[in-house]
Amino acid sequence: MQYRRLGSSGLQLSALSFGAWVTFGGQIGRDEARNLIAAAYDNGINFFDNAEVYAKGEAEKVMGDVIADLRLPRDGYCVSSKVFFGAVDNPGPTQRGLSRKHVAEACHAALRRLRVDHLDLYFCHRPDLDTPIEETVGAMDALIRQGKVLYWGTSEWSATQIREAARIARAHHLHGPSMEQTQYNLLHRQRVELEYAPLYSELGLGTTIWSPLASGLLTGKYNDGVAAESRLGHKDNAWLQRMVIGDEASRRLDRARRFTALAVELGEKPSQLAIAWCLRNPHVSTVMLGASHTSQLLENLGALELVDRHDEAVWNRLEAITAE
Amino acid sequence: MQYRRLGSSGLQLSALSFGAWVTFGGQIGRDEARNLIAAAYDNGINFFDNAEVYAKGEAEKVMGDVIADLRLPRDGYCVSSKVFFGAVDNPGPTQRGLSRKHVAEACHAALRRLRVDHLDLYFCHRPDLDTPIEETVGAMDALIRQGKVLYWGTSEWSATQIREAARIARAHHLHGPSMEQTQYNLLHRQRVELEYAPLYSELGLGTTIWSPLASGLLTGKYNDGVAAESRLGHKDNAWLQRMVIGDEASRRLDRARRFTALAVELGEKPSQLAIAWCLRNPHVSTVMLGASHTSQLLENLGALELVDRHDEAVWNRLEAITAE
Amino acid sequence: MQYRRLGSSGLQLSALSFGAWVTFGGQIGRDEARNLIAAAYDNGINFFDNAEVYAKGEAEKVMGDVIADLRLPRDGYCVSSKVFFGAVDNPGPTQRGLSRKHVAEACHAALRRLRVDHLDLYFCHRPDLDTPIEETVGAMDALIRQGKVLYWGTSEWSATQIREAARIARAHHLHGPSMEQTQYNLLHRQRVELEYAPLYSELGLGTTIWSPLASGLLTGKYNDGVAAESRLGHKDNAWLQRMVIGDEASRRLDRARRFTALAVELGEKPSQLAIAWCLRNPHVSTVMLGASHTSQLLENLGALELVDRHDEAVWNRLEAITAE
Amino acid sequence: MQYRRLGSSGLQLSALSFGAWVTFGGQIGRDEARNLIAAAYDNGINFFDNAEVYAKGEAEKVMGDVIADLRLPRDGYCVSSKVFFGAVDNPGPTQRGLSRKHVAEACHAALRRLRVDHLDLYFCHRPDLDTPIEETVGAMDALIRQGKVLYWGTSEWSATQIREAARIARAHHLHGPSMEQTQYNLLHRQRVELEYAPLYSELGLGTTIWSPLASGLLTGKYNDGVAAESRLGHKDNAWLQRMVIGDEASRRLDRARRFTALAVELGEKPSQLAIAWCLRNPHVSTVMLGASHTSQLLENLGALELVDRHDEAVWNRLEAITAE
Repeated sequence: MQYRRLGSSGLQLSALSFGAWVTFGGQIGRDEARNLIAAAYDNGINFFDNAEVYAKGEAEKVMGDVIADLRLPRDGYCVSSKVFFGAVDNPGPTQRGLSRKHVAEACHAALRRLRVDHLDLYFCHRPDLDTPIEETVGAMDALIRQGKVLYWGTSEWSATQIREAARIARAHHLHGPSMEQTQYNLLHRQRVELEYAPLYSELGLGTTIWSPLASGLLTGKYNDGVAAESRLGHKDNAWLQRMVIGDEASRRLDRARRFTALAVELGEKPSQLAIAWCLRNPHVSTVMLGASHTSQLLENLGALELVDRHDEAVWNRLEAITAE
Repeated sequence: MQYRRLGSSGLQLSALSFGAWVTFGGQIGRDEARNLIAAAYDNGINFFDNAEVYAKGEAEKVMGDVIADLRLPRDGYCVSSKVFFGAVDNPGPTQRGLSRKHVAEACHAALRRLRVDHLDLYFCHRPDLDTPIEETVGAMDALIRQGKVLYWGTSEWSATQIREAARIARAHHLHGPSMEQTQYNLLHRQRVELEYAPLYSELGLGTTIWSPLASGLLTGKYNDGVAAESRLGHKDNAWLQRMVIGDEASRRLDRARRFTALAVELGEKPSQLAIAWCLRNPHVSTVMLGASHTSQLLENLGALELVDRHDEAVWNRLEAITAE
Repeated sequence: MQYRRLGSSGLQLSALSFGAWVTFGGQIGRDEARNLIAAAYDNGINFFDNAEVYAKGEAEKVMGDVIADLRLPRDGYCVSSKVFFGAVDNPGPTQRGLSRKHVAEACHAALRRLRVDHLDLYFCHRPDLDTPIEETVGAMDALIRQGKVLYWGTSEWSATQIREAARIARAHHLHGPSMEQTQYNLLHRQRVELEYAPLYSELGLGTTIWSPLASGLLTGKYNDGVAAESRLGHKDNAWLQRMVIGDEASRRLDRARRFTALAVELGEKPSQLAIAWCLRNPHVSTVMLGASHTSQLLENLGALELVDRHDEAVWNRLEAITAE
Repeated sequence: MQYRRLGSSGLQLSALSFGAWVTFGGQIGRDEARNLIAAAYDNGINFFDNAEVYAKGEAEKVMGDVIADLRLPRDGYCVSSKVFFGAVDNPGPTQRGLSRKHVAEACHAALRRLRVDHLDLYFCHRPDLDTPIEETVGAMDALIRQGKVLYWGTSEWSATQIREAARIARAHHLHGPSMEQTQYNLLHRQRVELEYAPLYSELGLGTTIWSPLASGLLTGKYNDGVAAESRLGHKDNAWLQRMVIGDEASRRLDRARRFTALAVELGEKPSQLAIAWCLRNPHVSTVMLGASHTSQLLENLGALELVDRHDEAVWNRLEAITAE
């Protein structure tokens, strides 16, 4: 495994990490969850991502139980939570968002579910336009000073919002955001490559990347349409389906087909190549992998070896496909 | 239920909330208290107001027991306490006021009585001219940093005092006041509408309103005089009686009669109309309702529907009555 | 009882308070200690002064046990400790002084001995020239923020040292000293009346006064010499003896005789008159009384009534005696 | 024993102190460890140095057990830990270094192993170029404010790095470094005497000295070569061997021989003379002694008496030997 610093911070995360989204507490059982965490840790993954909203808290419970059961040394891994959407159905107005109340109470709830004394990373899952950024920054700083959180960050915030949080932190001697959890893949590049560009040197911002495979589109499995039994085909994921094959559907699908064709030509698995492409960006701290089977996780870990396998000409051909 | 932000903060309170004053630990028993809290919560009320002085701590004990008994989720409601008057008969000089000693000790006592780990809102129940504002601000900030209080505010402070507290907080990187608990109704408008006016934008001040019915005067029940068995008629409430029907008695009673007559003309319950009038002020964060019977509480909740029922001409007629 | 603010702070101490020095853990037993605390509290005394060095921690243990046994309400009284001299025989270099280590460890030890969660007042018993004032101020501030101490102060520091501590506190947003425990009586006036004079308005400094009777000299009991069985006659108190009847012995004794003669002329007990004289200084927050018998304590409490009994002409005569 | 302030701080350490390096948890058993700690404490040593990496945590466990077993009063001694190298074999990227994660987790682990509530001194065992100094300073400050650490410092940092840490601390009102643990002996003088020279007055930096005998070279025991059974001869200590008798081997050995010859001429034990020489530097706060036998420790304590035994002419002769 390769390890990278989370932006300019001293925390070193595995370049590939594990995300519990969609799978934990939902489509997979505890045994498979245990196998996945064990395989990930044994292969050098040291960051396990989670959120209060994943399976309404169940994903954190399963992960907490499995990690405790595996007796992983606490200083050998990092665990995260994210606050915003709440952990119950139809959350009330104090059970969601980034008010000091919910930021603090959600942290305590995540600590209990994950069975740890501190969260290594704690994210604001979305911006909250109904809470002053100053209130959220102060709440995060207090959790850090109390030892309950080590690094806090944002997820899907605009560069302007992140910069404002950092400015407030500096002005009041508070801890500012260390990282942003953001979508990044061959079909979704603008934020990481353009919008956030000045923040890497200005704030030392790190990035934890989700959806490196564009919800599976880059594996090629939707090249011939969306099967009902696939994740995208599931009725609960209509919004995902729209994003992947909605408005720009044909254009995106066309690119995905050309990308997978190139992978085949190169003799590489498309998923590995897509992940490897993300890793080539030096501003990517870690790429998070979801998986419902250990075999799938292990296969995607192979992406690490691809990063240096091809010369610039090959990467330029990928570039050409997505830039068009 | 409608929810409103507490000033510019991220905390969203129900537009109508529940106050334990006078009733809890006093005139009503535990069963009725339980019914009231349950009905309030079931109808979307998420803020339960209390104070150390209400029934000398008994109001907080009853509320704490009832909430624990009902197993309300801790992040689904807000509870407050207020410090100043003490929780014992004839409090000694260290058992009242806003010294660091009493602010801290009263907080701990309220946490025990209310059976919670943190107070969502903590009020300075009155200004304390014998304690420097800086000492009180520092004490409140320390409680917030320790996680024992989420938002602190004042009650019946002058705009000058509130502004001074905010200035000290900014100068020393401390948490300033977020809200003021103040009387507001058709017969008592000056503070909310004039004195505090600049503070809403300047400090993002929220307001939690007590006495929307002017101690019952606006229900019309004193239109024909004060009955001995009514709250105002009770001998312990002589000060309330003076305030309501004292110096300006005839003038106030006259206005109340004209207001109730208008309500009758409109086909509305006077109490609902009076509460609705408060809610029309955008600087009102929440209007606190007292009640000794569930039916009374539920009736007053109906005020929410009145807010948009009448056109400006009607509201202007109310305005005319109180402005004369 | 009369109550006074501790300087400009919001803490109100009884004008006469109780000091455990010399008596607790030493010459008097637990029963008498209990009687004294009970009588003091029943008569409105709300401040019980102590120090780690008094009977090497035994004075605090006795006081802690007695207060717990009497079930005094925690918010009804104030208790202090002082750090500097250590609580063991021949303290090692880390067991005394004002280093961060000893300030913190001595606080924790005093909390255990006094059986409380926080000290209301915590004094630096002497200046420590071998510790930077900044280190001590930082250590005291941390204890206040942790909720273990409410107000910190000094004892027998120079005005320059106190001012430096306050300056450092302001510069770094830390809690500065609130009070100075200092000797003050008819024969020892300079510090309180001259040296500290600018600090009362500048820093809002309060004073807790020890030795209002000049170690008994002002009671008149040494007018005819020091008896072996008196406190001053005890061989362990040679230093006290030197201070009282040493270098300036004849001059001091002469003044004491003239003072007691005046008291007799006025028909007052000398001890009450001497204490009352201290109370007339508005910069005195509280005068601490030592006592080994309840009767002695109760008699000295009578000083309160004397303060307003005599006219200026009488007080001027006392002034004349000490000013010569 | 003589006691010295740790730089300008108020902490007074014994001029000679005890280091657990190499011996504890390794070559000596618990009985000998207990004898050593007991003898050290009985002879006035009040500082026991340790680190997470010494015998991978075992050195701290042995020391914690022995100190608990001897019932040493907590305020009578100081104990340290150092963070950087980790406490396990092949530490993962989050199990070493100076990230906030490892600084905090290593502190908690050391507190458990040493069985104490706070570390008196906590060192950054080396600079970490992969962590911003600001992150480490913030993490150390938080531990101090939480009461888990009293003084933090560095070990083998450059003057530039130490000064940067101090600058960041001042700018953000944080606790800066109080001491540097550094090698210092007749053959290794530059850092203490030249590089750090401005820091003593500028920052009040204290120094805790290791290797006063240049890994034994100054005892004269390697004058005739390195025996296989000696510490330097042990195969695990190849790096030590290189340092001591590597590149500059012959030059260092030559000086060591001349130094021991001078000691013999003076009738002194070389080890005592070498330690005494260190103690003559007023910027040395404490010289740490390692020992595997009580007799060896006691002998080295004799160095204290040598400091003032010889006149300047003798010390000048030592100076001449090392300065050439």
